[in-house]
Amino acid sequence: MAVLQSFVEVKPDSHFPIQNLPYGVFKPDPTSSPRPGIAIGDYVLDLSEIAKAGLFNGPTLSGSDCFLQPNLNKFLALGRPAWKEARATLQKLLSSSEAALRDNASLRQKSLVSMDKVEMVVPIAIGDYTDFFSSMHHAKNCGTIFRGPQNPVPANWFHLPIAYHGRASSIVISGTDIVRPRGQGVPSGNSPPPFGPSQKLDFELEMAAVVGPGNELGKPVDVNEAADHIFGVVLMNDWSARDIQAWEYVPLGPFLGKSFGTTISPWIVTL
Amino acid sequence: MAVLQSFVEVKPDSHFPIQNLPYGVFKPDPTSSPRPGIAIGDYVLDLSEIAKAGLFNGPTLSGSDCFLQPNLNKFLALGRPAWKEARATLQKLLSSSEAALRDNASLRQKSLVSMDKVEMVVPIAIGDYTDFFSSMHHAKNCGTIFRGPQNPVPANWFHLPIAYHGRASSIVISGTDIVRPRGQGVPSGNSPPPFGPSQKLDFELEMAAVVGPGNELGKPVDVNEAADHIFGVVLMNDWSARDIQAWEYVPLGPFLGKSFGTTISPWIVTL
Repeated sequence: MAVLQSFVEVKPDSHFPIQNLPYGVFKPDPTSSPRPGIAIGDYVLDLSEIAKAGLFNGPTLSGSDCFLQPNLNKFLALGRPAWKEARATLQKLLSSSEAALRDNASLRQKSLVSMDKVEMVVPIAIGDYTDFFSSMHHAKNCGTIFRGPQNPVPANWFHLPIAYHGRASSIVISGTDIVRPRGQGVPSGNSPPPFGPSQKLDFELEMAAVVGPGNELGKPVDVNEAADHIFGVVLMNDWSARDIQAWEYVPLGPFLGKSFGTTISPWIVTL
Repeated sequence: MAVLQSFVEVKPDSHFPIQNLPYGVFKPDPTSSPRPGIAIGDYVLDLSEIAKAGLFNGPTLSGSDCFLQPNLNKFLALGRPAWKEARATLQKLLSSSEAALRDNASLRQKSLVSMDKVEMVVPIAIGDYTDFFSSMHHAKNCGTIFRGPQNPVPANWFHLPIAYHGRASSIVISGTDIVRPRGQGVPSGNSPPPFGPSQKLDFELEMAAVVGPGNELGKPVDVNEAADHIFGVVLMNDWSARDIQAWEYVPLGPFLGKSFGTTISPWIVTL
């Protein structure tokens, strides 16, 4: 079977061949409004132009204004049928055998933007964000730092997902400057707790799942339907001020030590 | 000095005399779209009608569409100058000495709705919500329940605000049914943790502050400017499943034990 190829030039080492096509939100220039796009090679395809040209012509997306929004929330809320339809439409549209975009110079000109010319923004309006403590190796490391080497992994970790809610409003896009937080650290002896810029700024590479249609309050999502709720994944940097965290985290968990900033990558890789 | 009185009849024991005028968001009937209102006696004043009639004629609010929104966020983002102007305008408009609304039967008919006929909704799109552990009496009680009577209040409590982020999407308006959560409790001995409906559902009366204009990431709010950021207060019920909480809360704080629902009162009393 021939490998699917795009008429858009894609270098062999690109993260964004036609087989990937992750979603993001971008501004073509600093004064324009944000709009959804997908990455292909070194280009961003402007989905608002594709929608205006009437090329989303499947049953779910035809006539929808979900790609004329400043974020992906409306598209995500449509659920997996819309996600599958969009992906099929876009993969076909970008393939070397399809004329609709390939042979339309005016539309190509409007919709294919060089990636190094655009500004990427946070692609979703994030309502809540939950950080799970899901790697045993990491749980052991953290437990050793905060509670010592004896039984560093708490018993509950083996039975249920340990997690906390993070501050959704401090999630920023990759490359955004993070201000070093000021706060209290653990006091030594009878001294008052020291206050000042964090001396133990740390970062953690995490994978974050972007969830889509949501569920009604009190109605759980069946584990067999999880795939219908996870739209895709981004890389995440869970910035932490370990000195602030060590003093504040008992009994209600990390708060100021992690609320000052969380970074995500701009492209959501779909599942 | 004469006491300020409204032309709207207000019973002597009403929580909503002209001196209070709290803000909420309501639907006049189940099919209409939500719009901002204030409470006066047994009535709700529809602020979208007042805005459409051009009666917000001060320098900040004249021409603004902040009361034509389905929530108060746009009004709150305008900050204290707008809040003061709106309050002064409304108090004047409802006073017995002012003719603009009092003598306009058609506008009164459109804008003054009986409170028992409306449906109140969550008045703000809540981006994040933080729950502070701020009463010493409560900290002692909780510490005794979860960690025993010896030193129930952790040392950090005396030095900084202990808090956690709650789940903003599970905040509902007073009167909404809350589904009893299912989850794991603390195992006894070597048994696996029991799973089932929470047996220790609890509730806590709290006061919640609704904050307004916000601050840029990394730029702290000066404590002397706090009043410019707090729009008003609501009552809050911090529902808790104490059995689920007791098993999950070390080391990252409460999560599933408190994420299933949080109730707020519909009227935001301004400060």
